[in-house]
Amino acid sequence: MAEAFPNREAFDYDAERKTMNESCFIPPPGAFTRTVQIRFSHCDPAGIVYFPHYFNMFNGLIEDWYTEELNVNYADLILHDQHGFPFVHVETDFKIPSRMGDKIDLTLLIEKIGRSSLKLIIIGHRDGIERLRARTVTAMMSLASRRSVDLPPALREAFEAYAAKTR
Amino acid sequence: MAEAFPNREAFDYDAERKTMNESCFIPPPGAFTRTVQIRFSHCDPAGIVYFPHYFNMFNGLIEDWYTEELNVNYADLILHDQHGFPFVHVETDFKIPSRMGDKIDLTLLIEKIGRSSLKLIIIGHRDGIERLRARTVTAMMSLASRRSVDLPPALREAFEAYAAKTR
Amino acid sequence: MAEAFPNREAFDYDAERKTMNESCFIPPPGAFTRTVQIRFSHCDPAGIVYFPHYFNMFNGLIEDWYTEELNVNYADLILHDQHGFPFVHVETDFKIPSRMGDKIDLTLLIEKIGRSSLKLIIIGHRDGIERLRARTVTAMMSLASRRSVDLPPALREAFEAYAAKTR
Amino acid sequence: MAEAFPNREAFDYDAERKTMNESCFIPPPGAFTRTVQIRFSHCDPAGIVYFPHYFNMFNGLIEDWYTEELNVNYADLILHDQHGFPFVHVETDFKIPSRMGDKIDLTLLIEKIGRSSLKLIIIGHRDGIERLRARTVTAMMSLASRRSVDLPPALREAFEAYAAKTR
Repeated sequence: MAEAFPNREAFDYDAERKTMNESCFIPPPGAFTRTVQIRFSHCDPAGIVYFPHYFNMFNGLIEDWYTEELNVNYADLILHDQHGFPFVHVETDFKIPSRMGDKIDLTLLIEKIGRSSLKLIIIGHRDGIERLRARTVTAMMSLASRRSVDLPPALREAFEAYAAKTR
Repeated sequence: MAEAFPNREAFDYDAERKTMNESCFIPPPGAFTRTVQIRFSHCDPAGIVYFPHYFNMFNGLIEDWYTEELNVNYADLILHDQHGFPFVHVETDFKIPSRMGDKIDLTLLIEKIGRSSLKLIIIGHRDGIERLRARTVTAMMSLASRRSVDLPPALREAFEAYAAKTR
Repeated sequence: MAEAFPNREAFDYDAERKTMNESCFIPPPGAFTRTVQIRFSHCDPAGIVYFPHYFNMFNGLIEDWYTEELNVNYADLILHDQHGFPFVHVETDFKIPSRMGDKIDLTLLIEKIGRSSLKLIIIGHRDGIERLRARTVTAMMSLASRRSVDLPPALREAFEAYAAKTR
Repeated sequence: MAEAFPNREAFDYDAERKTMNESCFIPPPGAFTRTVQIRFSHCDPAGIVYFPHYFNMFNGLIEDWYTEELNVNYADLILHDQHGFPFVHVETDFKIPSRMGDKIDLTLLIEKIGRSSLKLIIIGHRDGIERLRARTVTAMMSLASRRSVDLPPALREAFEAYAAKTR
């Protein structure tokens, strides 16, 4: 149990994926990175992170990025401005599992800024080795009209500035 | 709050996605479908399902499919046979949100049977309309050797029989 | 891992509790009972249910009790009538752990009906043996006024009828 | 929705509890306290923390207390020493709800050190006002023998030193 697949090298489950294993990742300068402590509560009977928890971590990372990097209060955006940011697409490659006691770094990068949508890339890594990689698409909408809304100019500018500095 | 975006028609966040909205889905005869009750605990401050819960539902659906459809005891596979089935890839399009009190049907289809991996498609739908669609890749591995293992013949045959009858 | 403490007899951690072990429980006739399947997702690296999941199960049981036993639509109470039912107190004795593949029965009984509050007892059991026992206090409040509200007469009557028939 | 019961003064649901509201709490010097950010993911359709998440926070607090305060690696205790710490009893009074964007402080105190068990008190507070108070009992056991074990002397001494300095 305790030491279930700590190493995905072993994981040549599909030839075409083999080359993805052990890919290196160094965040670009200025990229927003937060360290997540892998806890007992994240882990399953095989001793590794139960994968739905990663999506929770992604959501927390995005929240912190708004608040700490963009200086946009995420709680206010929702509770005061009555905007929602539903996920419309998520995809993730899980490359190397993580276990209780591990710390992993999550780095957020912008892939594309749409009219009302935002495509992000989130990389989970440790010691320069990529453990997982996700792409997410969120859309901004009004909770009142229930329709998508254009990104407000101030928010768009904040996204563009972040994309520029991490390119 | 309570009625946040019940309808994704409103959601033309990207032109190329518009055509995906309101897509119809009728499960093929013989497909494994389970109904999930959307509960208070699934929903976020916007009143809709917080997306990580869907992945939990997918895992439960797969468990039930092994046990009820394939007559393979999923708990035994893990606890007795010491096999693990980590997710190596997941992608999901969230098309129409669901709210507390809704019931959604989840249908499981096989996309591809690999040497040690299995690609599944999971469709969430209600009244013939698709609400979400996921593709998952799981790999079979030994918890002892921590290596991927070939699918056992009996399991492969069960997968193939299911794929054949739902094609 | 796989077989961590299946039996709490072993658990004489405090002399005064010893007598609680292996207590029998047979639900009174007419009591509301639902069976919960213990899933992979409920279990921790020790192979048993991670305890916060039980509270989620309790909330689901209460939801189903309103809807299926009392014929009160729980989603409507919240979304339409704008009532909330926050928990103000919860206590639980975990007596025998449960593991993936187990099924446990959860039975709901009323302990006391207050002016705006409701005290419930929830017993988790299997094969006549009690596995856990919880007491919860929820209070009814208005989401608009943010104040506790008296239980509506129809709801109070439904509670009283249930209490009477399961006494 | 967004502002559902931010203030439990309103909550005179039971006369005898009224006096509990607005109780003050100042941690004793040397007490272990960690701040938790209330996130979107913690909150329910009423906009407040869905109560099972608090138990997850308690578990995280206890983990951090072992590792950061007692200098005992919690992951090693479980994965290497093969000890488990199941909860055998939990009780919590939820006094003032918390909402997305709030930060709450969680303070851990020892109530009693048993032969193999440990009784803890966890207080959630903010600005000197208590928001919730929990009592937990965990028992130490061997994952191999599946029996409770006496607390190892080094661990007992660490508990006693912490209890002494926070008395």
